[in-house]
Amino acid sequence: MTTDPLVVFTPSGKRGRFAAGTPVLTAARQLGVDLDSVCGGRGICSRCQITPSYGEFPKHGVTVRDGALSAWNTVEERYKSKRGLKEGRRLGCQAQILGDVVIDVPPESQVHKQVVRKRAEAREIVLNPAITLHYVEVAEPDMHDPSGDVQRLQAALAAQWQIAAAQVDLALLPRLQPMLRKGGWKVTCALHHGAAGVPTVIELWPGLRDEPVYGLAVDLGSTTIAAHLCDLRSGAVVASSGLMNPQIRFGEDLMSRVSYAMMNPGGAAEMTAAVRDGMNTLFAQICAEAGIAATEILDAVFVCNPVMHHLFLGIDPFELGQAPFALATSEALNLTARALDLDLHPSARVYVLPCIAGHVGADAAAVALSEAPDKSEDLVLIVDVGTNAELLLGDKSGVMACSSPTGPAFEGAQISAGQRAAPGAIERVEIDPVSKEPRFRVIGCELWSDEDGFAAATAATGITGICGSGIIEAIAEMRLAGIVDGPGLIGSPEQTGTARCFADGRTHSYMLYDGSASGGPVIAITNPDIRAIQMAKAALYSGARLLMDKRGVDHVDRIVLAGAFGAHISPKHAMVLGMIPDAPLDKVTSAGNAAGTGARIALLNTEARRLIEQTVRAIHKVETAIEPRFQEHFVNASHIPNSVDPFPILRGVADLPEVTFNTGGDSGGRRRRGRRG
Amino acid sequence: MTTDPLVVFTPSGKRGRFAAGTPVLTAARQLGVDLDSVCGGRGICSRCQITPSYGEFPKHGVTVRDGALSAWNTVEERYKSKRGLKEGRRLGCQAQILGDVVIDVPPESQVHKQVVRKRAEAREIVLNPAITLHYVEVAEPDMHDPSGDVQRLQAALAAQWQIAAAQVDLALLPRLQPMLRKGGWKVTCALHHGAAGVPTVIELWPGLRDEPVYGLAVDLGSTTIAAHLCDLRSGAVVASSGLMNPQIRFGEDLMSRVSYAMMNPGGAAEMTAAVRDGMNTLFAQICAEAGIAATEILDAVFVCNPVMHHLFLGIDPFELGQAPFALATSEALNLTARALDLDLHPSARVYVLPCIAGHVGADAAAVALSEAPDKSEDLVLIVDVGTNAELLLGDKSGVMACSSPTGPAFEGAQISAGQRAAPGAIERVEIDPVSKEPRFRVIGCELWSDEDGFAAATAATGITGICGSGIIEAIAEMRLAGIVDGPGLIGSPEQTGTARCFADGRTHSYMLYDGSASGGPVIAITNPDIRAIQMAKAALYSGARLLMDKRGVDHVDRIVLAGAFGAHISPKHAMVLGMIPDAPLDKVTSAGNAAGTGARIALLNTEARRLIEQTVRAIHKVETAIEPRFQEHFVNASHIPNSVDPFPILRGVADLPEVTFNTGGDSGGRRRRGRRG
Repeated sequence: MTTDPLVVFTPSGKRGRFAAGTPVLTAARQLGVDLDSVCGGRGICSRCQITPSYGEFPKHGVTVRDGALSAWNTVEERYKSKRGLKEGRRLGCQAQILGDVVIDVPPESQVHKQVVRKRAEAREIVLNPAITLHYVEVAEPDMHDPSGDVQRLQAALAAQWQIAAAQVDLALLPRLQPMLRKGGWKVTCALHHGAAGVPTVIELWPGLRDEPVYGLAVDLGSTTIAAHLCDLRSGAVVASSGLMNPQIRFGEDLMSRVSYAMMNPGGAAEMTAAVRDGMNTLFAQICAEAGIAATEILDAVFVCNPVMHHLFLGIDPFELGQAPFALATSEALNLTARALDLDLHPSARVYVLPCIAGHVGADAAAVALSEAPDKSEDLVLIVDVGTNAELLLGDKSGVMACSSPTGPAFEGAQISAGQRAAPGAIERVEIDPVSKEPRFRVIGCELWSDEDGFAAATAATGITGICGSGIIEAIAEMRLAGIVDGPGLIGSPEQTGTARCFADGRTHSYMLYDGSASGGPVIAITNPDIRAIQMAKAALYSGARLLMDKRGVDHVDRIVLAGAFGAHISPKHAMVLGMIPDAPLDKVTSAGNAAGTGARIALLNTEARRLIEQTVRAIHKVETAIEPRFQEHFVNASHIPNSVDPFPILRGVADLPEVTFNTGGDSGGRRRRGRRG
Repeated sequence: MTTDPLVVFTPSGKRGRFAAGTPVLTAARQLGVDLDSVCGGRGICSRCQITPSYGEFPKHGVTVRDGALSAWNTVEERYKSKRGLKEGRRLGCQAQILGDVVIDVPPESQVHKQVVRKRAEAREIVLNPAITLHYVEVAEPDMHDPSGDVQRLQAALAAQWQIAAAQVDLALLPRLQPMLRKGGWKVTCALHHGAAGVPTVIELWPGLRDEPVYGLAVDLGSTTIAAHLCDLRSGAVVASSGLMNPQIRFGEDLMSRVSYAMMNPGGAAEMTAAVRDGMNTLFAQICAEAGIAATEILDAVFVCNPVMHHLFLGIDPFELGQAPFALATSEALNLTARALDLDLHPSARVYVLPCIAGHVGADAAAVALSEAPDKSEDLVLIVDVGTNAELLLGDKSGVMACSSPTGPAFEGAQISAGQRAAPGAIERVEIDPVSKEPRFRVIGCELWSDEDGFAAATAATGITGICGSGIIEAIAEMRLAGIVDGPGLIGSPEQTGTARCFADGRTHSYMLYDGSASGGPVIAITNPDIRAIQMAKAALYSGARLLMDKRGVDHVDRIVLAGAFGAHISPKHAMVLGMIPDAPLDKVTSAGNAAGTGARIALLNTEARRLIEQTVRAIHKVETAIEPRFQEHFVNASHIPNSVDPFPILRGVADLPEVTFNTGGDSGGRRRRGRRG
């Protein structure tokens, strides 16, 4: 009695015995080893390349002798002579197992390969896209047994790929017959694997096609639309591009767009058309950059806040503008690009991530997918800072979400010298606690304002204003330097001992930069500026505090700042302001555009779509608008950093002078409440 | 121990015991008794009306006493006072079972009611449409537990109607929120139940809606497009209308349209646009007639031959013009009206019946659905006579199908005095076997040409030509009168003994009507006319004979003539010509527009869709073009009635003179072969 040869695959470690003569690809499939193949084992696509190892493998208990694999056959020889094969590589579909062998599957031969992310990932991205390629040989039509070309294609997919009941997209039907004949009944199909489980053939190429297929991950923001073009077969980002959201002409923030729809008949439809047009412009732009046609894009994933979500889908966001903030639909959507007027492949598919609640959108869901709070061992607070901040708090025992109406102050709006983050804008500020003299940096220049060459280096851009991160640092530095007090009042020249403080109406301002001598702007931090930031940061902090109340904790283990703005905030200054809860500074990190990353994960891995749908359903939603304690937290958080919460960790690393400038006048702490996008 | 009351439902005879207090509707549902309800048992739609019977029912073994049903409650009283109820009727959802009772469900309270057909049906049509209406009460949005309106609507359908995982059509999303609020969270949904088993909400009305919803059954022919507008809740045909197929300008028959597509770049797309435009015109026309908006049409079923099928779907019919006559797709299609540019409801659904083979289309499938050869006890031959004849032969042990290229002669084309069936056309002919004198009738007049008042009655239309049924009768009568011989030659005046036969080039013609004296046409039957009809009828007969060969029979039990033309053919004359196999004349019947009827069945009953899909898969397809015996049968069938097959039944009822007019010249029996639409 002889024993069948033992095969050990690396790196998976999967092993099994197979009858002598079994092709390596067959063995891999039976063991569930991830070994790619587009041609289905015909020795023409070369995706199934493997490397056999010879010698002693005590770890595996195997000795591999020469002859463990069959000799090169003509198919393999022909492939090698025509296209070449790396030293030591074999074609898995041709090489047969004859004796015990150890077989390595190199990364490029794996379908579900790991996609490289730039930073330590919260969640592995394994390539498992909705679009797959399959080479098939289709039976020719037979008058004795008539059937449609579609039906014979379906039969080929079932027999050669075990893909049953594949549908053929209507838009492909007109091209099906010429394509099958052009390929001599050998074609490569692009299949879309939808949520319903029925795969659909959406594209067809004659012969074997082993080229990239493309997908788009789109982060549709109120202000900008950002898209990543990805190769769905390698997971690589091929191009990235952004565009201002053309809806800006209907209103800067979300609430003004909701108002526009309410005040103007057809206004919502107008904004829907604008954003879809804008996306098509962006897609054309990104395709031009990558040198591909938009029709090569077969799949697209969208994340956006609820108002953009509704406008994108053609739904009037009216209900989102008022309690109870009812979404038309909250679950994930599987749609076609055609239905959304998107100029992609005529059968391209679209996936829209689920919304969490009326103010916590698919963008927040994407952040949850990227940052995976539901997988976290420690308690993490994730803050996506924007004109409407979304907050997630939780760990693997559970996650809660809320949004908070921070308003546009963090983006430089409502600030006297405020501006968008653009060259010339002050982005970083330091104030000497003794001299009370400031120095700053502007976007586009690496030098501080007190360094040699600063004037020359900024001559081109000028010094034009102050952006969100700049105003946060300025006020935090003013607090640290004793120029502004806890309630948010700027002291007089006498109280602060610096002439940079000057009377400005009924309150005082702090002169950061006076360019008036050279015809430039006067950039001062005014008390209304401070009030605007107080409102914004109090809203943000109150949301976080509310989630902490619900969770029954008074601190969090770590804080993740998401969003492009979050990437530019200095954790220390944010904490001095009391924007975010007290935490060790090294536990406050930036996740960059986590929503965009979440979109890309969902594009590259359909399993991640199912996962985030489940996660979102499980997230506990907290509506700040109806929480009685929100107002109390808000009042406390109007103080810099906070009138009640002690911030012990912060106070351990930063000195917060106990100054008071109130002389009985206006406290500057008027409270407002309102939702702004 | 007491026994629960016994309930007997009529007419179903279903019976069961239920706890006292059970509403009649609940009992009906549990027993599977077909009792309608739109409002889900809330006493507002009144679809569940039933009639209790009182007294002794020995047949059912029940005595029904007063008080067997609960007294009228306020809901029922209010309904009756506001809307009225027929004497003896109760609302099934309100009346509770208190004692043994016999309950009749009147036809109008049944969902799956039998639809009345004009003639004895081959297959029962039970109403079971793809669109159903459901009244639901949807939960209002809750900030403490945020969810989309779609998700709460889904939950309501699941809880109140046990309809799980219903989808909401994208096109409905923009109207969902206003509609739910307008209805005060009470709405009636129109659900489409597709093949995939996932129901989709495609329309929504505020409150209870108990109005008809509409569907279209469309027979898309090469020459005409005919549509029936049906009320999907009663099964009634509300309006019927027809339109010339606008593709006629690209070619009269199918083959010339295939050629047009081949010769003209973009020609197929042009024809697709033309036929879709034509349909939209027809739909507007039929809606105007019925006084409804096209957007009220929620479902449509299409039947058509393969070339029209492809052009309608936007597929170039190129492959259908040449062997192996490969269909792009043969199975049934579930599509949206939008994808086909049809101006119906924005979410209207479309079902296209399956094709049987490259020349046997969805129209033949519809004939099979209507005539149900697969359910027949005896062997039936179904002939759909058109420019391309489709033939079905079978019984419940199996069905075969083929098509035969009859060409347009049966429609009056290729006939010297031929014309379409229209007022003024000769449609019936008799020739006295002794005097050889003819008489005839024209369309639009009930009188024969030798009856008093004929001239006056036809003065308006004139006598303009001869249509398909007229030419068939004329030639058959000529054969019976010994004016034309078996091979198809018309005799000379000497041979026939009548001056109506006259030399006409190298052959003779028979004068049917000479209107030249009054400036009218000369309508003669020429030898080329006879040859054209011989070709057409030989093709038809050969197809039938081939199916009989395959089946191993030399006769059929009955023959069904389908198609508008089939309805006008005289069975005896058709048999004298040898168009159809020998059979007792009373076993030759007309099914009228069986394809249209099949479309209507598929519209009204989704189960019939599944059934015909199975039936079509089981039909054995015979391709006449490659059958070696076709040519032999064709040659034999060129003879009138046939040079080989004896036609004993025909000869028992008709005298076929054994004349021969061939004097050694052209036999007139040249054969051609070619596919024409």
